Parts: sequence; structure tokens; C-alpha cells
Amino acid sequence: MLEMEEKILKEGKVLPGGILKVGNFLNQQIDTAFLKDIGSEIARLYEGCGVTKILTIESSGIAIAVAAGMEMGVPVVFAKKHKTSNVDGSVYSTTVHSFTHGTDYTVVVSSDYLCRGDRLLLVDDFLANGSALRGLIDLAGKAGAELCGAAVAIEKGFQSGGDELRREGVRIESLAVIESMSDTEIVFRPAGRDTVNRT
Amino acid sequence: MLEMEEKILKEGKVLPGGILKVGNFLNQQIDTAFLKDIGSEIARLYEGCGVTKILTIESSGIAIAVAAGMEMGVPVVFAKKHKTSNVDGSVYSTTVHSFTHGTDYTVVVSSDYLCRGDRLLLVDDFLANGSALRGLIDLAGKAGAELCGAAVAIEKGFQSGGDELRREGVRIESLAVIESMSDTEIVFRPAGRDTVNRT
Repeated sequence: MLEMEEKILKEGKVLPGGILKVGNFLNQQIDTAFLKDIGSEIARLYEGCGVTKILTIESSGIAIAVAAGMEMGVPVVFAKKHKTSNVDGSVYSTTVHSFTHGTDYTVVVSSDYLCRGDRLLLVDDFLANGSALRGLIDLAGKAGAELCGAAVAIEKGFQSGGDELRREGVRIESLAVIESMSDTEIVFRPAGRDTVNRT
Repeated sequence: MLEMEEKILKEGKVLPGGILKVGNFLNQQIDTAFLKDIGSEIARLYEGCGVTKILTIESSGIAIAVAAGMEMGVPVVFAKKHKTSNVDGSVYSTTVHSFTHGTDYTVVVSSDYLCRGDRLLLVDDFLANGSALRGLIDLAGKAGAELCGAAVAIEKGFQSGGDELRREGVRIESLAVIESMSDTEIVFRPAGRDTVNRT
């Protein structure tokens, strides 16, 4: 998605430690007109795949998931990062490692909202090591739901998470794949941006 | 908003401890068609008020804020519940007490995204004691931003947060105000649902 690359080049900021800050338009502050375009593009990519539900993880995945869900006409479920007293009944849970924060955290979703028969699209803002997506895949598996694939706004292609998942047969659509980045240059993966299972 | 009351009656669930569970359509699982209607209603309520930005708090406020922001054509900023390594530079912070969890937590927003000259609409899913809204008002004040008012999906009118804020002159628009609730009955505030500053 050319607009995503342009937006990253124009407004993104590379911080020490391999962090790409896109808080100006994608998380923290959300450019809602651009978000609509993101939702349309995800809907286009997964058109005809029979997606019945979108699954994401709080917090920064929610806006993108909602934009895609509105466009596709399907509900959005978000997994929570720890069990709160507002979740009753049984839950599915899994452990996700955050490389950004250097910690493990538990992710839960109520079994009321994830069911056998659901055809899931996973949505998140970033894909780097793939830990969050693997957590969502684990939750989907525990619920007996079917997986249509994943859509992420920005993939750090220089980390292996996305390509490993593709090799395992998971459809991953990233709106922009960064091959390398420094404080002076961001290079995007040139080909196959919108193709399936490039390996 | 009649549809909100109907949705609460049809799909809401009252849990012990004064908790209204609306995870089926508003948080955890989001009914995206209904969410669009929520966004339109908030846009209608604040039409002509010169809102330039929506401020919410993670996580369950984000979907509603995004729906309203898309409809109003303004960006959404969400305050985070603790400082993460993805927030650089200076931040505004405040303390919010969670009655649900019985704890205080710190809420931060980068000073890059909240500025003097912003005309803010605060958005959240629930209003009970008003602690979260007061936190957002505090952040707005620290940034020197102007406050147009607040829009919440569901107000627990039997708790005092909303009416106290109205008495202090803050415009609060709640799409549904619950006067009382038990596991057998939910009663809504009958009049002035869409009016300003009822006291």
C-alpha cells in the first residue's frame, strides 16, 4: 500500500533500538481519514475469503481492526492483556512475549466471543517477531476457529516473524514491509507487497 | 439514543458488584455496524462545536473514539495507561482511580499530540464515578487545550460522576443513562437523554 509507505517516510521516526515510531498517525494519534483507507485496503485484500470475525489484541490493534471490520461488515473481538473482573465465564488464554518491553504477558479472550465456526482475520499494527500473531493463532486454535489470515499495517521485514509464519502457510498481508531502517533511511521490500506467502 | 438502550436491554448482562457487561457488542466484541451508528450520533451531538481532536483512554474507549473521529473527520488521540518505551519526549501524565479494579493507575499522553489550540472532545465507553474523564480533563488542562465536552456510550446515572461534572459546567452527552439496574431490570433515565447539563 503505497500510501502507507509514504506516510511512514513522511511522518515515521526511527528511534534507537529498532523502534519505528508512528504515533503521529497510527497509534497514540490516529489519522482517521487514513485509517479508513487502511480498512478499505484490508477489506480488498481479504474480499471473498468468507471472514466472519476479526481478532486483534489491545490496544494499538483496535483502531485498525475496527476500521477493517466496519468496511467488511464483521464484528471485531479484541484479546485483553490480562484477565479483568469484567470478563466472566471461561476464557481462552495464551502467553505472548513482548520484545519491546522484554516481558511475557498473558492474553485472554472470552470463550463467548471466539467459537468453532468463526472464520478469523487477525489484525495488528506491527509485525516483527510474530509473537503477538502467534498468540492470536493459539487462541484461535483453542477456540476451534478457522484462520483466514492476518493483516498488519507495518511489518519489520528485517525481523523474521512474518516470513516464518508465511513459511508455515499462514497468509500474511502487510500494508508496508520495511527491509531496513536507520535514522537517515527507511527501505521497503520492493516486490510482492500485496502477494500471499512470499518465501 | 434509543438503539443504545435497546442494545443494553437485549444484550447487556448485569453482574454482581454493579458491573454491566456489554462485552458482546461494545467492548471485547464490537458490533461494527452499531459502532458506526454510535459514531454518527456523537458527530450529530457535537456538530458545529469546532471539535478538532478526540481524546480517549485505552483500551475500550478507542473503538468508539475512532468511529466518532471518522464521522467527524478529526484525529483521535488515546492516552496510555502507563509509559511505554514507544513514547519518547515529554508527556503529560495524571493519576486515575479505577473503582472496577480498586487501584490507581497513571495515564500519559505525549505532548506532541495534545496542544494549546486543540478543541477536544473526550470519548469513553463508560461513565460512572467520572475518574477517567477527570483524568482526561486534567491532561487537556495541562496541555492548554480547550474542552468542548465529553461523549460516553453508557453512563451509570446512579453513580455521581456524570452529574457532578455537569454541575461543574462540563458538557456530557451519554448515549444511554442507567438510573438503576439489577439482574432482573435495567431502568434508564427517562428525560433529557440528549440535552446538555441537566442538573
